[in-house]
Amino acid sequence: MKIAQVSPLMESVPPKLYGGTERIVAYLADELTALGHEVTLFAAGDSVTTARLEPVWPCALRLDPGMRDYLAPHVVMLEMLARRVEEFDIVHLHIDYLGYPMLRRIGVPFMTTLHGRLDLPELKRVYEIFDDVPVVSISDAQRDPLPRANYVATVHHGIPEQLLMPCSGSGDYLAFLGRISPEKAPDAAIRIAAKAGMQLKIAAKVDKVDQQYFAERVEPMLAASHVEFIGEIGDEQKAEFLGNAAALLFPIAWREPFGLAMIEAMACGTPVIGFRNGSVPEVIDDGVTGFIVDDEEQAVLATKRLHRLDRGRIRRVFEARFSARRMAEDYVKIYRGLIARDRPLRQAVSAG
Amino acid sequence: MKIAQVSPLMESVPPKLYGGTERIVAYLADELTALGHEVTLFAAGDSVTTARLEPVWPCALRLDPGMRDYLAPHVVMLEMLARRVEEFDIVHLHIDYLGYPMLRRIGVPFMTTLHGRLDLPELKRVYEIFDDVPVVSISDAQRDPLPRANYVATVHHGIPEQLLMPCSGSGDYLAFLGRISPEKAPDAAIRIAAKAGMQLKIAAKVDKVDQQYFAERVEPMLAASHVEFIGEIGDEQKAEFLGNAAALLFPIAWREPFGLAMIEAMACGTPVIGFRNGSVPEVIDDGVTGFIVDDEEQAVLATKRLHRLDRGRIRRVFEARFSARRMAEDYVKIYRGLIARDRPLRQAVSAG
Repeated sequence: MKIAQVSPLMESVPPKLYGGTERIVAYLADELTALGHEVTLFAAGDSVTTARLEPVWPCALRLDPGMRDYLAPHVVMLEMLARRVEEFDIVHLHIDYLGYPMLRRIGVPFMTTLHGRLDLPELKRVYEIFDDVPVVSISDAQRDPLPRANYVATVHHGIPEQLLMPCSGSGDYLAFLGRISPEKAPDAAIRIAAKAGMQLKIAAKVDKVDQQYFAERVEPMLAASHVEFIGEIGDEQKAEFLGNAAALLFPIAWREPFGLAMIEAMACGTPVIGFRNGSVPEVIDDGVTGFIVDDEEQAVLATKRLHRLDRGRIRRVFEARFSARRMAEDYVKIYRGLIARDRPLRQAVSAG
Repeated sequence: MKIAQVSPLMESVPPKLYGGTERIVAYLADELTALGHEVTLFAAGDSVTTARLEPVWPCALRLDPGMRDYLAPHVVMLEMLARRVEEFDIVHLHIDYLGYPMLRRIGVPFMTTLHGRLDLPELKRVYEIFDDVPVVSISDAQRDPLPRANYVATVHHGIPEQLLMPCSGSGDYLAFLGRISPEKAPDAAIRIAAKAGMQLKIAAKVDKVDQQYFAERVEPMLAASHVEFIGEIGDEQKAEFLGNAAALLFPIAWREPFGLAMIEAMACGTPVIGFRNGSVPEVIDDGVTGFIVDDEEQAVLATKRLHRLDRGRIRRVFEARFSARRMAEDYVKIYRGLIARDRPLRQAVSAG
């Protein structure tokens, strides 16, 4: 199958450090290529992929200090895509709605994975008018604020099976991984660890927008003797950081659309204690790969039951449910369905 | 002629107070309608026009406190336009490059007026790939940083002939009108007036991004006894504010793409003392409608020569060069040229 993957340009594919969407695009493009498909990846020029790279911009926009207008490179990308569109059986967008007016008229089957939160009021109107555009949610829960888009499936994210391998879990500490932000609730993690009488290691980046929150709400708590703040880490450090942890704390205070950190922990055989919110109940198998809890108190109690979980089994559940291969195969099924549906239309267009 | 005008949605058309692009779109749509054309205006729903309004969003985005994503309504607008495109002979865009990938493929003649600065590095790549899209500059000088776009004309802005009528000019003060920002250099205006021994009245808004500049650089100067800060004013107040002034000071410190305040002053019969930068030498007839100067000292000297200028003649030059009627007629010529050029193509498309 000839597949175009259209990535955001903010980060390279995969991103150098943190960055959800571009990371998933990277895994998907590589796995589809490994499955024998011809994949063309529209992305920042410093991306690294086994697919054929169409370098839209010299480097990731976030790294270009002269950059003023982040929209312009994405519109350039749409034009580059349009000029080659005859070459593709399917176009898979990861850039939200930007290309819809063009792609609806160009005669190629296309679909979009919605990577972000769907509770922005503007999106209601967007998906009223684009009610025929096939979209994929990354969890069922993600759909709640925007129930009326044309969802064709939920495809949970996956990561390469060999990317993060299990460690012993003997570190006897709790782990927090992600961004420092009110939604991710590192303060809750710090309180839970304190009440559980355990060490907490925090591996997290602090975005500019979250600097104030970090300084006012989190930094004062870091002085506690049970807390260690490590900063942002890359994949090489993650296996050790997660794999040696007794559990990952995921005390989110928002509708997490997916939550990659959860499956990264599972890949390492590490259980997850997650708050019942957003995608968490879909991702954690309660009592198998971790515990789903409703508040900090339940989270503390859950730390006492971690010994009941089988880390080997957590790894096996990860392999079955959250590998990049499974994700790629899910998408291929969707591509096939859309191509079959659109075939009569496309023949009509190309017949002119 | 059936004309679609596609406006930005940030402000209503016309905007309630300050706001360049949407104001020009308003004048153009009304004048084209007065000339007998069928004009459809894609704009915010609280716009007021003699054209047919296609209300894309309930109100101007700047006034919608719940608004998070300003791009979404513009993409919705492109889709609304695309669905009606068969109805139009020509589409005139005022939203930069956003619609190019779609419009290049939809078979309707279209063009864009470039309203902003063209020195953003991203635009080079945009107009390399969209080198066939007809664009109009609002001054010849505006083109300098981006010489290779497909310019089909320069069309200077115009305002309705009766919008601002002359007053006596007997106020014996200098006027500053616009935004408080480093580019507009209100500090230079304050110094010039001081050295000229004249009062300065400042009618200006302070945008959020310019708050710090205002507080640090301008506010301390407002205490001077020769300065009066009036704040933001609407059209009703402008005729009096400008018309009673001895001159408008326009000491800009950037490549002003056009500079509406200059022609507003001229409409009132008021001369303009402008710095040689950007569009200024194209807009001011030196020694007729004002003086073009190179620095603050020359500006001070120019205030001594204002009595040599004929305010009646300034008004007549305004009527000849900068009326909305002239602007609309210029655009109609361009529309006709593009329609004639694209006709064979369009017949081919509609013949299928």
